[in-house]
Amino acid sequence: MTLETAVYLIPVTLGDTCIEQVLPSHNRDVVMGIKHFIVENVRSARRFLKKVEQSIDIDTLTFYELNQHTDRKFIEHYLDPIAKGQPVGIISEAGCPAIADPGADVVAIAQRKHIKVVPLVGPSSIILSVMASGFNGQSFAFHGYLPIDEDKKTARIRQLESRMYAEDQTQLFIETPYRNGKMMQTLLSTLRPQTRICLAANITCADEKIVTYTVAEWRKRIPQGASDDIVAREIPRVPAIFLIYK
Amino acid sequence: MTLETAVYLIPVTLGDTCIEQVLPSHNRDVVMGIKHFIVENVRSARRFLKKVEQSIDIDTLTFYELNQHTDRKFIEHYLDPIAKGQPVGIISEAGCPAIADPGADVVAIAQRKHIKVVPLVGPSSIILSVMASGFNGQSFAFHGYLPIDEDKKTARIRQLESRMYAEDQTQLFIETPYRNGKMMQTLLSTLRPQTRICLAANITCADEKIVTYTVAEWRKRIPQGASDDIVAREIPRVPAIFLIYK
Repeated sequence: MTLETAVYLIPVTLGDTCIEQVLPSHNRDVVMGIKHFIVENVRSARRFLKKVEQSIDIDTLTFYELNQHTDRKFIEHYLDPIAKGQPVGIISEAGCPAIADPGADVVAIAQRKHIKVVPLVGPSSIILSVMASGFNGQSFAFHGYLPIDEDKKTARIRQLESRMYAEDQTQLFIETPYRNGKMMQTLLSTLRPQTRICLAANITCADEKIVTYTVAEWRKRIPQGASDDIVAREIPRVPAIFLIYK
Repeated sequence: MTLETAVYLIPVTLGDTCIEQVLPSHNRDVVMGIKHFIVENVRSARRFLKKVEQSIDIDTLTFYELNQHTDRKFIEHYLDPIAKGQPVGIISEAGCPAIADPGADVVAIAQRKHIKVVPLVGPSSIILSVMASGFNGQSFAFHGYLPIDEDKKTARIRQLESRMYAEDQTQLFIETPYRNGKMMQTLLSTLRPQTRICLAANITCADEKIVTYTVAEWRKRIPQGASDDIVAREIPRVPAIFLIYK
């Protein structure tokens, strides 16, 4: 398969899942046609490529690292192969590139230069959790991380709950895994009893847990002052996404 | 493969794409383990299942229709097979179920009854367009359709543009294909010149077009009073999603 010269956005698995479970076989064909990859971490990108195709010759590939340490002025040159008719791939660390990673900066440059951008299908914890929550999928907003400061976080949660009721819009946000339990406790002491919370943890993995309860029901599962064990049993310390809706 | 008793959310292709391009092979294995399907349209669901596996015996399957004509009081019974240990599948008409279709009502019932819900990976025009737009993927909001009334639509567009600048949040919405050109013209006469618009049309199809320009650049491509031909050349009358960002 000869690939059209373009920037291809290549999703990876969420956690230690089989490639076949979450990526179309077409993605493998695209990957095999690319020699230049923009990646957040070279080591995990190599591991992913070996998982996609064991026979891949890693030494024939060029990797360009793009993370918070990368000087922004180099990024533009990462797309130089395109001018020579060679496709470029952007590989995410988890899930879909350019959703919550620095890949978006390269895509913005590609769009400004009128370079064709082709997104490939893969697992997105945002979409999968909206699907499985039972919440409104016609209107939803993803907010990334909430503020760390406890007062600001509480104020933000109240604001999102108000917007959810006023605009009939599902609200989504994430937290660092080890803080998941604390986040749920803050939600339970802040939100109205009838508001529903969906916790979607380790999506697409063997221990995937996607459950929706009202705040009142969650409060019974995790009473005020509950032990760390109870909290950890209900809210695992794994990548998770929180959704609220009426 | 024996499936766990659960409600499986089964995405389909967007338009006339190969299954292998946009769906993981795992989805086929799941589909082959299900005998009860909740679908928006029985005919297109059958066509999809034949595409997934030509040898599938459609006559052994039971279909439950769920669309705007379905009496809500029947929906709950669509999950009766679960009590007998039989998995149930929800098939979308396009893309991911429960995102912008009635499937969400069944998922909400399943969550209330504490039935396990398993979302499968597939093409989402929302996620794919955020990825390829180059816009902020850490914060974005999908709004479905905007109001039809021209004054209300303009007011809503202004509100979304303000929120985009104030909250650094990508804003997404859709339009009926034959009104795409009109929508773009309304955007061009309403938004600020420096605001960027991404048009993502026929995502994952052969004629996929995902392009980002500023309003000022779009205005040059589609001048005020442009002929229908020019508008149609720039803005195809196919399923599309509009994104705005700074």
